[in-house]
Amino acid sequence: MDFVTSIFVKLGVPEEHARWTADNLVTADLRGIGSHGVARLKRYVDGIVNGAVKTNPNIQVVREGPAYALIDGDSGLGQVVGRKAMELAIKKAKRNVFGAVGILHCNHIGRLGAYAQKAAEKNLIGIVACNASPAWVAPYGGKTRMLGTNPVSIAIPTGGEEPFLMDFATSIVAEGKVRVKFHEGKDIPEGWVIDKNGRPTTKPGDLYDGGALLSFGGHKGYAISLAIDLICGALTGAGCMVGSKTWIGNGVFMMAIDVEGFTSLDVYTKRVRDALNLVRSTPPAEGFAKVMVPGEPEFESKKKRLKEGIPIPDPIWDEIKKVASEFGVDIK
Amino acid sequence: MDFVTSIFVKLGVPEEHARWTADNLVTADLRGIGSHGVARLKRYVDGIVNGAVKTNPNIQVVREGPAYALIDGDSGLGQVVGRKAMELAIKKAKRNVFGAVGILHCNHIGRLGAYAQKAAEKNLIGIVACNASPAWVAPYGGKTRMLGTNPVSIAIPTGGEEPFLMDFATSIVAEGKVRVKFHEGKDIPEGWVIDKNGRPTTKPGDLYDGGALLSFGGHKGYAISLAIDLICGALTGAGCMVGSKTWIGNGVFMMAIDVEGFTSLDVYTKRVRDALNLVRSTPPAEGFAKVMVPGEPEFESKKKRLKEGIPIPDPIWDEIKKVASEFGVDIK
Repeated sequence: MDFVTSIFVKLGVPEEHARWTADNLVTADLRGIGSHGVARLKRYVDGIVNGAVKTNPNIQVVREGPAYALIDGDSGLGQVVGRKAMELAIKKAKRNVFGAVGILHCNHIGRLGAYAQKAAEKNLIGIVACNASPAWVAPYGGKTRMLGTNPVSIAIPTGGEEPFLMDFATSIVAEGKVRVKFHEGKDIPEGWVIDKNGRPTTKPGDLYDGGALLSFGGHKGYAISLAIDLICGALTGAGCMVGSKTWIGNGVFMMAIDVEGFTSLDVYTKRVRDALNLVRSTPPAEGFAKVMVPGEPEFESKKKRLKEGIPIPDPIWDEIKKVASEFGVDIK
Repeated sequence: MDFVTSIFVKLGVPEEHARWTADNLVTADLRGIGSHGVARLKRYVDGIVNGAVKTNPNIQVVREGPAYALIDGDSGLGQVVGRKAMELAIKKAKRNVFGAVGILHCNHIGRLGAYAQKAAEKNLIGIVACNASPAWVAPYGGKTRMLGTNPVSIAIPTGGEEPFLMDFATSIVAEGKVRVKFHEGKDIPEGWVIDKNGRPTTKPGDLYDGGALLSFGGHKGYAISLAIDLICGALTGAGCMVGSKTWIGNGVFMMAIDVEGFTSLDVYTKRVRDALNLVRSTPPAEGFAKVMVPGEPEFESKKKRLKEGIPIPDPIWDEIKKVASEFGVDIK
């Protein structure tokens, strides 16, 4: 993580902000979410170099009430703007039970679960969603790309070590997974992608020849994706990303809920643990070793990778080394 | 609708509350959602007769802040408690931009979209979710019933006649839809239900013989369903319904957001209309006539059924006639 921090510092990002950003990226890799890890480093660096990302943004609250705020991120690093926004949501929730914060002019915010988890670490429920571009996803019943992968995350405190942590894109899979299969020359499962004629396909190359990703869960996932755009994009003023092909940032909406507005933390987290343990007790279906609750597979990956290290694909590692040497940072 | 109202009035429900309840049921039928329509009438009537549902409940706010409240529904009709809760959420949102209301001791709340839509009619964004029992749904990777169908609805004002209206169960279909197929003697598509041995089946009867519904969208829909239980059930104190086999009510969570906290209503609804029109302009995929936005299929059904009437399956109609004659209410 140190070398990632150092690269951002060399680019003029304040030390603390550089650390927040590096932490978001490296933790994604630890949790097995390579698509949101250091693989993104070069794009972040490019954004700073070409001026799209400001290293010392003037982040401001533009509208505010007891339980909400609208923040202008002034094109800062998404991780910096996002962290400040969640801190404000938490502060408001601690005072008024609910704290909601919308963000505009925010660059790529990274792993969404990190912000929701921040709320859970303070014994609050955290809910975060954002819209995203470019458009990769066909609306239900349509045959061309129109929607972003518009992800959503919910974290709930358990009173234990790890929170309940749901964190996923509303597309059926990340575009990156299709790209990997494409490079490997392998087929993809049916239901991921439609070709340029709107027909189901198992050829990953069809996505890059005018095809589209599908939403998860058919018309239901499509509806959630569109609702996210109408809240995170239209309400905040960040802009809807329907049909968008250019904007690289995110319109973001975050919420923190203080459970103590409703009951004591102990009572609440006991209810949560009891429910999660009951779900875990479900007899597994064929092909499954056990029933897990949201976040568990990624927490298991984190434990393993903290011991064994993070496998980074060679082309990405080469790219990172190049970036590091460009800024005179030693990777070791 | 009048005879449904009359039946509730005969049972001791105040006229206005009887009308709210009848309206919720009949509007579901108009919108093509037979699972939440008058097919439920007998169960409601039975609930009142056996004392599980109070006709004159003492609905009370038990906790409150500027932007939230917790309401005890005192086992009133879900439609009455739910309506009052959304009215309070709207009132709080008009004052503080956000208004969130949790509900405990609430009977079956009916079509969830009705409450979200109520917010949109007042130019607010409405978000409503509830947990539900009994457990019909297997968790992802599990083979037995453990979760309710835990639905969620989001309504967004468009400045036009009809709002954006997303409204669905987090099971792949509502249990009521399987029940309708069962009554009609028809098969269900594969992917809806697993039988008692955890195998895919197309026989609706297998659900009622120890089978389970599946979540929509695999592990993602499962995560949403569980999050709904942990918020609507555990936070409100209504009780988590994981594994539940008895409770017939809903733990409910509602939220209203005043868009004018963020921007003017005109600016917001223009952004929403532009985004929705862009989505509608997507060329349709094979097998689809056009791309619709959430709520449109049901609004089209409503228009058609207001003209042509509502088709009710014979067994359900016979049941309704029996209930009506029992209470001396003349149908039509």
